[in-house]
Amino acid sequence: MGKGRVEAFTDGVVAIIITIMVLELKVPHGEDFSALVPLWPVFFSYVLSFINVGIYWNNLHNMFHTVQRVDGWVLWANLNMLFWLSLMPVTTAFMGENHFAPVPVAVYGVDLALCAVGFNILSAALHRLHGPESIFARALGNDRKGKISLALYLAAIALTFVNQWIGVAIYVLVAMIWFVPDKRFERLLEK
Amino acid sequence: MGKGRVEAFTDGVVAIIITIMVLELKVPHGEDFSALVPLWPVFFSYVLSFINVGIYWNNLHNMFHTVQRVDGWVLWANLNMLFWLSLMPVTTAFMGENHFAPVPVAVYGVDLALCAVGFNILSAALHRLHGPESIFARALGNDRKGKISLALYLAAIALTFVNQWIGVAIYVLVAMIWFVPDKRFERLLEK
Amino acid sequence: MGKGRVEAFTDGVVAIIITIMVLELKVPHGEDFSALVPLWPVFFSYVLSFINVGIYWNNLHNMFHTVQRVDGWVLWANLNMLFWLSLMPVTTAFMGENHFAPVPVAVYGVDLALCAVGFNILSAALHRLHGPESIFARALGNDRKGKISLALYLAAIALTFVNQWIGVAIYVLVAMIWFVPDKRFERLLEK
Amino acid sequence: MGKGRVEAFTDGVVAIIITIMVLELKVPHGEDFSALVPLWPVFFSYVLSFINVGIYWNNLHNMFHTVQRVDGWVLWANLNMLFWLSLMPVTTAFMGENHFAPVPVAVYGVDLALCAVGFNILSAALHRLHGPESIFARALGNDRKGKISLALYLAAIALTFVNQWIGVAIYVLVAMIWFVPDKRFERLLEK
Repeated sequence: MGKGRVEAFTDGVVAIIITIMVLELKVPHGEDFSALVPLWPVFFSYVLSFINVGIYWNNLHNMFHTVQRVDGWVLWANLNMLFWLSLMPVTTAFMGENHFAPVPVAVYGVDLALCAVGFNILSAALHRLHGPESIFARALGNDRKGKISLALYLAAIALTFVNQWIGVAIYVLVAMIWFVPDKRFERLLEK
Repeated sequence: MGKGRVEAFTDGVVAIIITIMVLELKVPHGEDFSALVPLWPVFFSYVLSFINVGIYWNNLHNMFHTVQRVDGWVLWANLNMLFWLSLMPVTTAFMGENHFAPVPVAVYGVDLALCAVGFNILSAALHRLHGPESIFARALGNDRKGKISLALYLAAIALTFVNQWIGVAIYVLVAMIWFVPDKRFERLLEK
Repeated sequence: MGKGRVEAFTDGVVAIIITIMVLELKVPHGEDFSALVPLWPVFFSYVLSFINVGIYWNNLHNMFHTVQRVDGWVLWANLNMLFWLSLMPVTTAFMGENHFAPVPVAVYGVDLALCAVGFNILSAALHRLHGPESIFARALGNDRKGKISLALYLAAIALTFVNQWIGVAIYVLVAMIWFVPDKRFERLLEK
Repeated sequence: MGKGRVEAFTDGVVAIIITIMVLELKVPHGEDFSALVPLWPVFFSYVLSFINVGIYWNNLHNMFHTVQRVDGWVLWANLNMLFWLSLMPVTTAFMGENHFAPVPVAVYGVDLALCAVGFNILSAALHRLHGPESIFARALGNDRKGKISLALYLAAIALTFVNQWIGVAIYVLVAMIWFVPDKRFERLLEK
């Protein structure tokens, strides 16, 4: 099966997710600057999720670029990942509207972790289909970055119950790892 | 008429349906785990509908893959199917927010049944255009799976008024039939 | 300029319009059949608008099929038409939620009329670019159907203030003219 | 990296932004003409933003038309611009619902200015990738129009606190500069 329509469908769903998130940014009541101040947690959550979904789009773009075909397993692995990604608007709003209370921060982290697991399952499904000698498999390597991200998410979820800002800081850190393509930073982190 | 734009339009509408459903998942009020518990019926409805719309996307993907062209009848048969599919976010929320009360469960089933009928009409329109000797007609066969699904939906709607969980269980069963491509399971079911 | 991206953008916007309209179908309160009854005006409005937007998609599909290129005027004529089409979810809900009161029915008709005018402007822009000898110009002909529709919409808006059901009946009639491609019906109507 | 998917993703996000803005146009309460009157600020904001987003789509269309490839910097510069554009539905509603009070009008201008800055960063990223001798660089020129727009937005934000209608008038003026491709008008303005 050709990859074209799966790519287009995935891009469509990701484009919709990244855009409808803004609908959770409720229009502030009041007409002076003080009406904007209470919005900062919702706005900061939105920025963080926009970057996270942007990273996913980027990675999906690169991943599908190196593969040639898809099968039934890939289709379902892809839908599974999109499912967890589709929850991002809700978990983002839950975290923002509760001003980064511990449980919502942890729930957001669980969603990020399940997106990461979903991405790994999709990678595995594509790896299985194309074989270990394919360009895709070599480009993916041992996916150290993906494994570190997942470990960091799990740590963040646990540490949120010590102090939720540790959790938030780790989410920002993981976004930065993917955002800034700094090799040395990665190597440092692995120690 | 080429099938390209109909395919792209259909994929677009299905991508939007599957994604805006999440807007019916209202952000929970409260900031601890107890705020999440009452969400389970809405969440479970969402999962079920995400899988159902995913199955439709999958089937439409395969169906349009084997056809070459479309005509006016196909365009309208396609829009008819998309209409019933577009009601899925509302019927899903109706079922979830009423905690699987009998009438909402039956309404959800009526929508699923009308989607299935719409899919059959679309198949028939494509069959009529391509003829019985086409690849499409041979791939479709006698569409036993589609007929069984429709029969099961009708049974589910009726049995919901005995006990609504029978209805829900049948919806899950039909989703599994399409999800798990197990030939023996199908054969077993036909008896 | 190639027509490809304008076509894709237009299809995208129309796909989103036809799908987000369902978000105005609010989930009914209550869990038995009596909760569904008051929904009928909203639902009937939705059906009518789904068919109308479907007709626009169909016509845009055919129109862009016969043209080769676009210019700045076409881009803006297209955006103008999409603007009036984008108001359809709001005017539909306005008509439905007010149970087909005269003013909302007239407002809905004004939106339909402006969509029709927008479509005529887009036709004219494409006609100007391709010349009277083009396939597009010959396929369009004197656009009798478009002119009749516009005249009927204007009549409907006026007659709504006599009795709103005359207006609604005319909207249904125009949708049928486009939906059912019956040549004799058209000829009859012209007298 | 090919530009195809970035173009498609960008078009998708812009199509969704321009369409979901209509969801902020709340259905009016009441069923006569007096119910429509209080809607004018929201409606006028919507028209202005529809034109602004339409201008962005137009410019992005032309920009991507003249480039051949993209890199990581372009992807992120593009996402940055889309981020500020994605806030347009919220800032539009904030301005409209507060009947063009000074702070909301200024906030809308800040969003427009950040979209313009984002567009300039994207231009710079594409310029850097393609070199000063490319068709893209020559088509862009010294981007006088972009710089004038940004200066006008900044002036509008400041002047809004003298009288908010000066700010609104400048936003309309900038939209007209891009909308009406009148060379003389531009030259006049530069003095």
